[in-house]
Amino acid sequence: MTRNTIEHDLRRIDDILLRLCELADEAMLGATQALAEADVTTAQRVIDGDRETSALHRELDNLVMYVMARRSPVATDLRRLLAALRVGADAERMNGLSRHVAKVARRRYPRCVAPGSSRDAVLSMGEVAAHGAALTRELLATRDVRLVGQIIAVDDEMDRLHRTLLAYLIGPDWEHGVEPAVDLTLVARFYERYGDHTVTIAHQVHFIVTGEYREPRPRVVIVPPRKQFLMPR
Amino acid sequence: MTRNTIEHDLRRIDDILLRLCELADEAMLGATQALAEADVTTAQRVIDGDRETSALHRELDNLVMYVMARRSPVATDLRRLLAALRVGADAERMNGLSRHVAKVARRRYPRCVAPGSSRDAVLSMGEVAAHGAALTRELLATRDVRLVGQIIAVDDEMDRLHRTLLAYLIGPDWEHGVEPAVDLTLVARFYERYGDHTVTIAHQVHFIVTGEYREPRPRVVIVPPRKQFLMPR
Repeated sequence: MTRNTIEHDLRRIDDILLRLCELADEAMLGATQALAEADVTTAQRVIDGDRETSALHRELDNLVMYVMARRSPVATDLRRLLAALRVGADAERMNGLSRHVAKVARRRYPRCVAPGSSRDAVLSMGEVAAHGAALTRELLATRDVRLVGQIIAVDDEMDRLHRTLLAYLIGPDWEHGVEPAVDLTLVARFYERYGDHTVTIAHQVHFIVTGEYREPRPRVVIVPPRKQFLMPR
Repeated sequence: MTRNTIEHDLRRIDDILLRLCELADEAMLGATQALAEADVTTAQRVIDGDRETSALHRELDNLVMYVMARRSPVATDLRRLLAALRVGADAERMNGLSRHVAKVARRRYPRCVAPGSSRDAVLSMGEVAAHGAALTRELLATRDVRLVGQIIAVDDEMDRLHRTLLAYLIGPDWEHGVEPAVDLTLVARFYERYGDHTVTIAHQVHFIVTGEYREPRPRVVIVPPRKQFLMPR
């Protein structure tokens, strides 16, 4: 393996994808803290932190284009390159959604975006997002496709939290008015989309490894994350 | 030009992309009507109408993969193929967002999702969405990159409508309570994202034609669409 083999380029591409997921994970952790603690300093740090993401994404697109034009990849290598484009787009979007969450926190500072028990809902969504991102990073690093089903199950949990929060906002127990409800509707949507992108990445890795796009829904249910958001009774 | 040239495959790919945009445009027109008129029949038709989109998207991915593996494209052809993957993903997402809007209309039937003057806001967003989609279809059909700036300007108008509607929802004039505000927050986000995807497609076509990704923001402002949503005074 010299610097000029296709394998060298593909390894660099894998490193970029993994780093993009790490950056998204870090950004969403910061955004969740900014939201739950009305922490405008962290919010600003997350919002300003998109330079590495943009640079990596540009490098990725150029590298894929270069490898395709110069090395005429076929079979598995071609699959890896096409999947890398899609994974890169998803990871970039996860970074963007984290910044959207941080912007809501900054916009309402010094008020906390999540009043009362909705704060637990936000923390739960943040925890599930981190769980999904950790599994996605592991999947990218190991290509162990058994993780695909776990990522889908974690996203199912995210969807459940999303539905529960929206039901709480429009239900009789919500007593914080329209503005926090509008903010939380947006924030919940950002977390939910973040989870969707982990699933898309999982499908792409599955495609790289097996040549098949779709993974059936898993039959086993994973252990749910520690904190749970329950609608107040 | 015989059936076996790369040009034949690229033309089929262009046809698919154009059709995916047409389908998104039709779906969003139906979704807007479903929302504004509380028309559950149209909502259901939009929701059920994703079969052709899915089939075309699968055909697109397979065809791009095939051409890349068998025909070793370079230069402009390679750019067209890579851009086609991205445009296809954006057009599929526009279709998905239209269905999301229709689902909100169905969920609240027989109540109208948009009470009072928010109905005008929804109609305006629908009209701007249709304007952006029409320009995007024209751009795909003609590759006239002068349309890129117009598409960006139409999306700026969408962003303005989005901000105006959110400000109305959380302002003192909103008197319809939390549930319609939550619904409209989601719906406005779907329209806004729909517009974002027209811009991404425009950038991709710009990339195909010029080899450059970015188009500077336009200096001229287009004529705004006919209907305008104004916050009540």
